[in-house]
Amino acid sequence: MTSQAVTAVGVDFGGTSIKLGVCRGETLLETDAPIITGDYKEPDALIRAMAERVEKLCVKYPDIAAIGVGVPGLVDFDKGFVHVLTNVPGWHHIPLRKILGDLTGLPITVENDANAMAYAEWRYGAAKGMKNVVALTLGTGVGGGLILNGQMYRGGHFSAGEIGQMSIHFEGTSGHYGNLGALEKYVGNNQIAEHAVHRYAQAGVHREASECTPKAIAEAAHAGDDIARQVWGEVADWLGTALASIAWLLNPDAFVIGGGVAQAGPLLFEPLEAKMKSMLSTVVWEGLKLVPAKFSNESGIIGNAALAADMSATLSR
Amino acid sequence: MTSQAVTAVGVDFGGTSIKLGVCRGETLLETDAPIITGDYKEPDALIRAMAERVEKLCVKYPDIAAIGVGVPGLVDFDKGFVHVLTNVPGWHHIPLRKILGDLTGLPITVENDANAMAYAEWRYGAAKGMKNVVALTLGTGVGGGLILNGQMYRGGHFSAGEIGQMSIHFEGTSGHYGNLGALEKYVGNNQIAEHAVHRYAQAGVHREASECTPKAIAEAAHAGDDIARQVWGEVADWLGTALASIAWLLNPDAFVIGGGVAQAGPLLFEPLEAKMKSMLSTVVWEGLKLVPAKFSNESGIIGNAALAADMSATLSR
Repeated sequence: MTSQAVTAVGVDFGGTSIKLGVCRGETLLETDAPIITGDYKEPDALIRAMAERVEKLCVKYPDIAAIGVGVPGLVDFDKGFVHVLTNVPGWHHIPLRKILGDLTGLPITVENDANAMAYAEWRYGAAKGMKNVVALTLGTGVGGGLILNGQMYRGGHFSAGEIGQMSIHFEGTSGHYGNLGALEKYVGNNQIAEHAVHRYAQAGVHREASECTPKAIAEAAHAGDDIARQVWGEVADWLGTALASIAWLLNPDAFVIGGGVAQAGPLLFEPLEAKMKSMLSTVVWEGLKLVPAKFSNESGIIGNAALAADMSATLSR
Repeated sequence: MTSQAVTAVGVDFGGTSIKLGVCRGETLLETDAPIITGDYKEPDALIRAMAERVEKLCVKYPDIAAIGVGVPGLVDFDKGFVHVLTNVPGWHHIPLRKILGDLTGLPITVENDANAMAYAEWRYGAAKGMKNVVALTLGTGVGGGLILNGQMYRGGHFSAGEIGQMSIHFEGTSGHYGNLGALEKYVGNNQIAEHAVHRYAQAGVHREASECTPKAIAEAAHAGDDIARQVWGEVADWLGTALASIAWLLNPDAFVIGGGVAQAGPLLFEPLEAKMKSMLSTVVWEGLKLVPAKFSNESGIIGNAALAADMSATLSR
């Protein structure tokens, strides 16, 4: 790859706003003000707004060679097509590469947001240079992206990496699809809060869920609160069970863990490592690194820009 | 790949015997009498016996271009090195490619047996031509092999595909490594028998485990035995949970299922399909095929021969 010299725009399409930035290799040169998705009634208008932003950026950075767009939903990466964005009204069956490419004259990649995060961490982040990487984001849900045999792995229908839907209990809590034991129904932000409320109640302490955000539980644990520490231990058990299963299946070189919950740091990582070690063979465990993500909010911009830059030579326009 | 014309020897190294055969493309030209491993006290003698067999086969098939050896244990595929075969005394740290290559003058591949089975099914079997394939063998344990992005996926330390060690219950039965909820502790042959004994006992019927082999339970279910049908339903639930998790993670094009338990046919496949459909999104489920393995006892010979044939041009000798 010769992307070090390639400049590209990374677009991070979220539920309420779209963030744009210009990257040259791993350097984020500039972040543009976000576009508020609610200001645009239909996809065409929103895509035109993106194109206008890119045109302005191209005046300042005339070497921009490609645009990478990451979206929170199902795409066809090969076709640059958005199947559906659940949380953005009107985004069904949008040929985003074609529309944005026609407007800007630039090659376009369209990627799932979790894959873009994985790409950023593999290309320039915590898993740089590794061959087999599982990246996950812990937040309201649990998303994931895979780099296998040194390349992005998307699966047969571009739906790989749905770590949050994997089961940790064959008779457990139902996930979004009715799937029993879905991991994110245990370690999603809201589920952690609810579980903490439950553990406090068992100890005779009343807490509202709003007082039990992962951040608040982490602070309580740091301050020596035994219940908060117990909750982190349980989260580590649940998450560690899923990650150990992935490790048995894929024997990866690293897990990269990002998102809000990961910011608990050693409170999460220490029991998580102990749990995983207890679940794995020596060969699988010793070949494995658990690392916090290098990038946080900017991972979407960096990952999508990197992907577009790396593919710019081969993408047709 | 131009392996159609390449002739190679496939060696299937089992716990008690070694089977050899000659393949040209997908055609198994000849199967040799097995070598009994117990007749040879040390690896060197056993490898010499293999080499002698190959030399005789080379007289009959002078176009033999490579040897593929599959072993029941941990290998270094790149180096052609056997780390350890748990069930074969003395097989620790054996540079099998070097020794067998020096004796025969042929290029050698050394592969894990479950990977070789996956390769056979992908190259010439039930998953021929598919891009992303998960193959598994159901027997005393549960083994697996992965073809991802159209190539064999072995993981960072050649240990990928250990489906039997994946957890289906974060507080479940311990596997071989102390890993809670290990799939093969639910759906291994012996565990199915024990579970059937338990279910019969609950219904006031005494059965020995020896009367509850998967084959016997399948026959009872076919004959209309409700308890036997219930047992197959539970096996499908447990196995389906693990396969659904793999489908969420990898979004494969197919699962290929082989081994004795798979011979239950529709008794297993029908509830398994129903379970997986209930656990998956439409996109992941509709893109997925569940297929029985094409090859059975000969999959090791065919897979290892195919792998060696396909790699013969690039392997150094």
